[in-house]
Amino acid sequence: MRLARVAHSDGVSFVALEPDPSAPQEKALAVEIDQHPFGDPTFTGRKWPMSDVRLLAPILPTKVICVGKNYAAHAQEMGTEAPENPLIFMKPSTSVVGPSSPIKLPPNSERVDFEGELAAVVGQPCKDVPEARGRDVLLGYTIANDVTARDQQKADGQWTRAKGYDTFCPLGPWIDTGVDPSDLEIRTELDGEVQQQSRTSLLMHDVAALVSWISRIMTLLPGDVILTGTPEGVGPMQQGQQVSVAVDGLGMLTNPVQQG
Amino acid sequence: MRLARVAHSDGVSFVALEPDPSAPQEKALAVEIDQHPFGDPTFTGRKWPMSDVRLLAPILPTKVICVGKNYAAHAQEMGTEAPENPLIFMKPSTSVVGPSSPIKLPPNSERVDFEGELAAVVGQPCKDVPEARGRDVLLGYTIANDVTARDQQKADGQWTRAKGYDTFCPLGPWIDTGVDPSDLEIRTELDGEVQQQSRTSLLMHDVAALVSWISRIMTLLPGDVILTGTPEGVGPMQQGQQVSVAVDGLGMLTNPVQQG
Repeated sequence: MRLARVAHSDGVSFVALEPDPSAPQEKALAVEIDQHPFGDPTFTGRKWPMSDVRLLAPILPTKVICVGKNYAAHAQEMGTEAPENPLIFMKPSTSVVGPSSPIKLPPNSERVDFEGELAAVVGQPCKDVPEARGRDVLLGYTIANDVTARDQQKADGQWTRAKGYDTFCPLGPWIDTGVDPSDLEIRTELDGEVQQQSRTSLLMHDVAALVSWISRIMTLLPGDVILTGTPEGVGPMQQGQQVSVAVDGLGMLTNPVQQG
Repeated sequence: MRLARVAHSDGVSFVALEPDPSAPQEKALAVEIDQHPFGDPTFTGRKWPMSDVRLLAPILPTKVICVGKNYAAHAQEMGTEAPENPLIFMKPSTSVVGPSSPIKLPPNSERVDFEGELAAVVGQPCKDVPEARGRDVLLGYTIANDVTARDQQKADGQWTRAKGYDTFCPLGPWIDTGVDPSDLEIRTELDGEVQQQSRTSLLMHDVAALVSWISRIMTLLPGDVILTGTPEGVGPMQQGQQVSVAVDGLGMLTNPVQQG
């Protein structure tokens, strides 16, 4: 199932995206979910063609946990070694935006980079999850861009400021509950030119290992998002450009870049 | 006004703590606030003697933003220099606990330290707050303990794991909306012995400067908590000990320490 959150003429709803049998030109119908998508969602009966709704970030997480240097080739391009254990950091929930929302470049940064990533969305409250059950506690998967003010990351040492600006966590376009995350192509394009191209099979700590590691530190709550790390090829974005992150089976997350 | 959140026989409520004229032995009555304490709170008419309620963390923040090395003497004891700009990091909201709740030592850390701090609680959504208005957007002040697994902080470089464990952010006992934060004594005691003793006048970046700095990075929301930094004297806690942080006018935040 593909789960999304949309703005429609009556407000904002969680929806399931379903094929529209009566309109083959339309890729999908947005079928309204009652309340929230966790557990066994029920439907209200309302539905809209996709052309009548706007996709928002598919979830509003209570926390966004990220993993640094989780592809060896990216650790190398940053001039560092990949750490033995997952290296975690956080982005504030206020940094989350949806597909097509502008990434706003802070006036006090000289270099803001894209970092395309596979993201896992937690489906239930959990703590101390064994690695063998790591994927069972997830609602599904989506795409993220771990936008980073590279100059401030280097200056501060701690990464919170550089990665914490409003609009620095594009998420979407939807959450897929059925995809197998173990070997998906991940690709980032800037104005259509490929910048990052890798596979999730190259993650040094895979999704299950990350869920287990993080949940041994902190309780994970429904909707919390884990950004699994970016592959090599990160680079700067300029005002007026468009950045897209695509992951096999999860669609493409595209955001314009604006001066903030 | 002193604002708290309490567990009572019917559930959990925000309350104002008021003198109890009919019972001079009781320090205060807990007077129930309708819904939440932001803006101009209204009261339901229900009230309880303090002996009938249990104080919880006075707020459940959407984010906890912390400031590192904000007292020169603490930066020095850590073997570093104080940075020119505020150095921010985050604790997950799941790390927050209230007064008297146990701090749980993770089994995989050899050294878990107390760090007593003045905390500011945001009262309204805000962004790009000028320093001159930095204190105007606050609901009030409370006390925090920025509990830190010191060995993991050093090992990781990023501080998220070391400071992010469940129970690693005791907050309370209440939020005082009237206190002037500019020159308050702050004191941390371990089993009654003073470990940290300083004054908030020694903060290198004061409360208004921190609110302004952080709000130029990220939107702050009602209930968000800013930990302003710890003075010198940090040190380890052992299972079975009690740690207390006191700030002039804000009472004392006490938590037992348990093996997790």
